[in-house]
Amino acid sequence: MFRADKGLAFILQYENVAWYEEGKVRILDRRIYPLETKYVECKTHIEVSKALADMVTQSGGPYIAVNMGMVLAVYEAKNLPKDEYIEFIKKAAHTLCYSRPTTVANMIKAVERCYRTALEAAENRENAVQVVFKAAIDEANKKYQRYEKVAKYLYEKVPKEGTIMTQCFGETVIGMLMRLCKENDNNVKVICAETRPYFQGARLTASVIRDMGIDVTVITDNMPGYVMKLKNVDLFTSAADAITMDGHVVNKIGTFQMALAAHYWGIPYFTTGIPNKEHQDISSVKIEERDGEFVTQAMGVKTTMEGVKGFYPSFDITPPKLISGIVTDKGIYSPYNLNKYYE
Amino acid sequence: MFRADKGLAFILQYENVAWYEEGKVRILDRRIYPLETKYVECKTHIEVSKALADMVTQSGGPYIAVNMGMVLAVYEAKNLPKDEYIEFIKKAAHTLCYSRPTTVANMIKAVERCYRTALEAAENRENAVQVVFKAAIDEANKKYQRYEKVAKYLYEKVPKEGTIMTQCFGETVIGMLMRLCKENDNNVKVICAETRPYFQGARLTASVIRDMGIDVTVITDNMPGYVMKLKNVDLFTSAADAITMDGHVVNKIGTFQMALAAHYWGIPYFTTGIPNKEHQDISSVKIEERDGEFVTQAMGVKTTMEGVKGFYPSFDITPPKLISGIVTDKGIYSPYNLNKYYE
Repeated sequence: MFRADKGLAFILQYENVAWYEEGKVRILDRRIYPLETKYVECKTHIEVSKALADMVTQSGGPYIAVNMGMVLAVYEAKNLPKDEYIEFIKKAAHTLCYSRPTTVANMIKAVERCYRTALEAAENRENAVQVVFKAAIDEANKKYQRYEKVAKYLYEKVPKEGTIMTQCFGETVIGMLMRLCKENDNNVKVICAETRPYFQGARLTASVIRDMGIDVTVITDNMPGYVMKLKNVDLFTSAADAITMDGHVVNKIGTFQMALAAHYWGIPYFTTGIPNKEHQDISSVKIEERDGEFVTQAMGVKTTMEGVKGFYPSFDITPPKLISGIVTDKGIYSPYNLNKYYE
Repeated sequence: MFRADKGLAFILQYENVAWYEEGKVRILDRRIYPLETKYVECKTHIEVSKALADMVTQSGGPYIAVNMGMVLAVYEAKNLPKDEYIEFIKKAAHTLCYSRPTTVANMIKAVERCYRTALEAAENRENAVQVVFKAAIDEANKKYQRYEKVAKYLYEKVPKEGTIMTQCFGETVIGMLMRLCKENDNNVKVICAETRPYFQGARLTASVIRDMGIDVTVITDNMPGYVMKLKNVDLFTSAADAITMDGHVVNKIGTFQMALAAHYWGIPYFTTGIPNKEHQDISSVKIEERDGEFVTQAMGVKTTMEGVKGFYPSFDITPPKLISGIVTDKGIYSPYNLNKYYE
């Protein structure tokens, strides 16, 4: 079976993202990696959905997990009569896609092939699990290959021996970008904002880059604005949880103020991702708020006095005027003309 | 003995900042408060200097500690011949003032009275310790009363039931400001950025505010830019480690990007503090870099993979164009006309 994850860092390998095996889905717990390498084991697609809501995996992880969740749903429903099976699959797809409010549109797109395959198997369920599993891998490959294309366009903007700043976890694009740097003997330096409260930048992005043998430095989230100038950053890049057709980027909290600082210093900010047709403009995006308690701790240690509240909006919105380009699998687009992507 | 710290939060009381007693100086360890209430005990002024370099206390803390350190130096030198005593005191003052490169100018100013008093006691050392201790308290009172004046000018800019955003630990000004809010029955809300890597905002500012019975919420350092708009913040305020005469503010890393975001949204940013004549312009300020290892941990827990570097500039520089006003003990000044303060 062709695998597009060859040669990437440990946590970008499918087995270490989300993986169906013998009636279970295991998901690498990205909340604790690389301090611990542990998997959350899900025995039902409901548990997969809960793991997604609990952010066991994030960034590109949920898009593989949702399909492995579909495989599991097929396994769960294997002995149901046809009508009930169809009903079960429909419900499961809905449950999985709606695990997190902000990413629903992308999840629906990601699950499509497995969902269709699962429904097609309603008549003959003998190899349903294998067939849907194959669809899940195909879909993951498609996604990875698509992001490889994105990374190639972004790589063209990376100067020789340049310095890149990242926000949160750019996932496959970061892995592919680093692979391109290695292949081209381009000794880039990468500066990663740590990305509180979950430290995805420090734990995931920096670890992936280090894993691939590239010079990487972590800074805290109050530093990017100052450090991007001080360390002559050539470009700032992030992925996106949603790119609206009117050019707004919805991404991990902190992206906005980094983009603002980049704009102030004249450093380009490139968002990687595919514009979301489902969001014709920013008004249809719901910004998720999570439990404020997570903000008043760090790595499990309480940071303030009892009685102090926490507030935790997961994402923020960066307006098109702060974005230099949306880097897609078809090239770089102006945030002001994203319809062109679909022409 | 008059005490200007009456009615302020626990950690603003002199005994809980830095305190000389029986041949020792104890300094509240602000690096761990409020999770633990522990004091670092110094038996020599060198140990006081080391504690300052290690950031056992910070913000306004060092300016009380430096004088308590001078009391200790007088105690240490009590039996030396006059010439050696003078030499010892001079050296001690130098050691204490140069504990941290960025704050040297302010430290020299802060230690002046105790230093002079200590030298004046060279002839008659009988009550030298008590006399210099009295000078240390007088100096602390003077500082606190000065900051009470600053807080009064800042308070005039706080709308009824308004929302204030803070950065790092505004110390006495924050305490005094909160006291004024209480006295005026003004139910303000305060949002504190947590201030990585030491979490002074979460641990100190938020705790002081909570201690004084005011509504307070902590956010992580990637949130201010977005949250200040979302939560209709009325003003952003910070103290300053240095205010140069050409209107630049040197303060805890993160201040710059918060000021930039406030400017973007049209929210005023008020810096509290006294302009530093010693810095005619920003070129004379040395920005301290600290051990990068501190950035790759949080509350003592490692946040990334072995081999990932950390970078830790303690401060950043905010240019005058992003500052709405410098709030001093004599009123609010434009950052573009700070000479007026000294007229």
